[in-house]
Amino acid sequence: MPHVIIIGCGFGGLAAARELASADLRITMIDRSNHHLFQPLLYQVATAGLSAPAISAPIRAILAHQSNLTTLMAAVTGIDTAGKSVTLEDGSVLSYDHLIVAAGSTHSYFGHDEWSALAPGLKTLEDAFEIRKRILMAFERAERETDARRRQEWLTFTVIGGGATGVEMAGTLVEIARHTLSGEFRNIDPHSARVVLVEGSERVLGAYPPDLSEKAREQLQKLGVDVRTGCRVVHIDETCVRYANFDGEQSLATRTVIWSAGVAASPLGKQLGVEVDRAGRVPVSPELNIAGHEDVYVIGDLAAAQSDGKPVPGVSPAAKQMGRVAARNIRQRIAGQKPETFVYQDYGSLATIGRKAAIAMVGKLKFSGYPAWLFWLFVHVYFLIGFRNRIMVMADWAWAYFTFKRSARVISATMPTQAEAPSLRKEVAE
Amino acid sequence: MPHVIIIGCGFGGLAAARELASADLRITMIDRSNHHLFQPLLYQVATAGLSAPAISAPIRAILAHQSNLTTLMAAVTGIDTAGKSVTLEDGSVLSYDHLIVAAGSTHSYFGHDEWSALAPGLKTLEDAFEIRKRILMAFERAERETDARRRQEWLTFTVIGGGATGVEMAGTLVEIARHTLSGEFRNIDPHSARVVLVEGSERVLGAYPPDLSEKAREQLQKLGVDVRTGCRVVHIDETCVRYANFDGEQSLATRTVIWSAGVAASPLGKQLGVEVDRAGRVPVSPELNIAGHEDVYVIGDLAAAQSDGKPVPGVSPAAKQMGRVAARNIRQRIAGQKPETFVYQDYGSLATIGRKAAIAMVGKLKFSGYPAWLFWLFVHVYFLIGFRNRIMVMADWAWAYFTFKRSARVISATMPTQAEAPSLRKEVAE
Repeated sequence: MPHVIIIGCGFGGLAAARELASADLRITMIDRSNHHLFQPLLYQVATAGLSAPAISAPIRAILAHQSNLTTLMAAVTGIDTAGKSVTLEDGSVLSYDHLIVAAGSTHSYFGHDEWSALAPGLKTLEDAFEIRKRILMAFERAERETDARRRQEWLTFTVIGGGATGVEMAGTLVEIARHTLSGEFRNIDPHSARVVLVEGSERVLGAYPPDLSEKAREQLQKLGVDVRTGCRVVHIDETCVRYANFDGEQSLATRTVIWSAGVAASPLGKQLGVEVDRAGRVPVSPELNIAGHEDVYVIGDLAAAQSDGKPVPGVSPAAKQMGRVAARNIRQRIAGQKPETFVYQDYGSLATIGRKAAIAMVGKLKFSGYPAWLFWLFVHVYFLIGFRNRIMVMADWAWAYFTFKRSARVISATMPTQAEAPSLRKEVAE
Repeated sequence: MPHVIIIGCGFGGLAAARELASADLRITMIDRSNHHLFQPLLYQVATAGLSAPAISAPIRAILAHQSNLTTLMAAVTGIDTAGKSVTLEDGSVLSYDHLIVAAGSTHSYFGHDEWSALAPGLKTLEDAFEIRKRILMAFERAERETDARRRQEWLTFTVIGGGATGVEMAGTLVEIARHTLSGEFRNIDPHSARVVLVEGSERVLGAYPPDLSEKAREQLQKLGVDVRTGCRVVHIDETCVRYANFDGEQSLATRTVIWSAGVAASPLGKQLGVEVDRAGRVPVSPELNIAGHEDVYVIGDLAAAQSDGKPVPGVSPAAKQMGRVAARNIRQRIAGQKPETFVYQDYGSLATIGRKAAIAMVGKLKFSGYPAWLFWLFVHVYFLIGFRNRIMVMADWAWAYFTFKRSARVISATMPTQAEAPSLRKEVAE
């Protein structure tokens, strides 16, 4: 029986696995983590609105009933397209007949890897916990700080990058400061927290038409976000971010920095023996293969795919559609039939900004504000995997909406002491 | 205005703070973590049944409306009872007029601190995440293991200590293996997992009467737990636990070990200048003061208190009652009135074992099995802090009960690779 290996159980890999559910194949799903993550809501975990289990589901459980499939929690360290095999982190080698690489993307610091510890990005649950801890700890530090200048540094939050994640983070941070934490501190006023969104280009949400970008900027400013476009970050350290704009260089005193400026494709792309693009993405044929290898498909954020001569965006609907096409093409080729050409169906774009604030584009229709936000809410809860998660997320959000409380305000680390036993000494990452 | 410092926001500290809500006092609540933890359900987080936010609530939020109180997330490193001050981890010093020490307890490895990394205990959310990760990873490792002997080592779970936590952990581990993970693996059968409960004394749940202990043992065995009493652990390493019993020494090949055998009082007790008992607890007067200091109260697990000539057990109802009495005694003494004597009200004891299995003792009434389990369920959901948490926990449990699924099966770490960027390399703790 032909063996199909799928690397990565994100939206693309999962869609491919499901499309092959009834196929006469042996499938191995390999993922480094044990869960499929509903990444569009990851910023809610980072901002203490949702718990991790609400937006993640164990891969084994999702795919348990697919009897032709084995789930392997493992890291792929090498791909040999000539020898048709994949190497895992423990040195074991798995042969494949067909390979789907859906390894996704990661943060890019544009050559400034030293910034990663200072300004974490948001791709995994661990990233979300780290950011949640930093945000909540910043308010705790501010409360204890006696020096006014340093206190304001703790109360200044900087989000770098005005794409979808950056805008969501900035909008939600303001909500936390103005509503969630209101009345809980004695030495500081959380309302006095500043949230600065720094974007290199001239507008936020650059993937949208200029008029919607402008709507987004207006809504951000109305919420209380200090939006600074045309500002390219040149330096980050523990207490400041420096950026260059037409005025020269500016310095911003801030102790919490979140990175959402750059995305790079998974380094696994470079293992496929074809030239990758500037973002590390792998060029694929209209059938989603790599050049010279009809048995190797690349899908999702890792693929530089074209549809109708236009580049396919790195969004979850595109990944799902690619997953299905790659899966069907494997079946077609095994059956000796002609594979299909990938055509991206664009159902529209949606970006949330904060409470009652969003922008949306569906076909020729553009809208923003409360209606867009309601639409965003509906779409995201609807697409969340699993009936249970949907119910739980809805309950969490209803609670948050009516009470302004956030349900996941847990810092799992504790303050270190000298007095306690070594086994209990947990460092607060800072 | 007199200044009251409360160290620790567990059940005791929180009850004391609430009792002082309307008092003409300035109160500072100091805790190393940002949340009050509903510790009786912590084993559910460790076994992937509940998410962390479901059993924890931000201290600031709980106490926000108490205008005479300031919350400080900080670690106390020193207490000076003569100078009436407390030192924090950043070197700052706070003076008090009255002090309530409610710093609780931690694990004790009976002089074998080297076991702490091999056999984590369960006191904090971080502990729970660590244990959850180890349990879920053990099944993942077993699935990938080709050597039959090693595979069985991965599928053998050892719980050391047959107190309440140990019994809960063992019962729930069997449920995970037999029900939750059923049908999700291809190379192993999770049913073949073994759960061994090792207890040094002759019976489990030694705080209960012998007939209830026997009921507990029967229920554990019926669930599928291998109960080994009269077995004193003498050695732990990565692949085995060795214990001594009347037959001599026995070796058990196991790769996941959970420690619930020993409890030691917080090391802060030693800072009070009085002699502590063997478990590190601080002897207190009937008014809950330490000898020679009417302004220093010790409550909860840290206190060696007596009531009617009998030692007060280290359980949450006792901690709450002590918290209230200590708080009232502060008010009485400020008013120049006689402080009250602590009398422990024993409302009964309850221990859950697993699905439909528990034992209970209320007054002279003893019962076990399904009725005890239903009673346990009701009591625990009822006492969970916060309306929202109660609803969420009930929903989680209803879901788990009817589907055998567990909602928090997330391992937040990923498999490490060489290929990925350093910022993404997260070690799986093992």
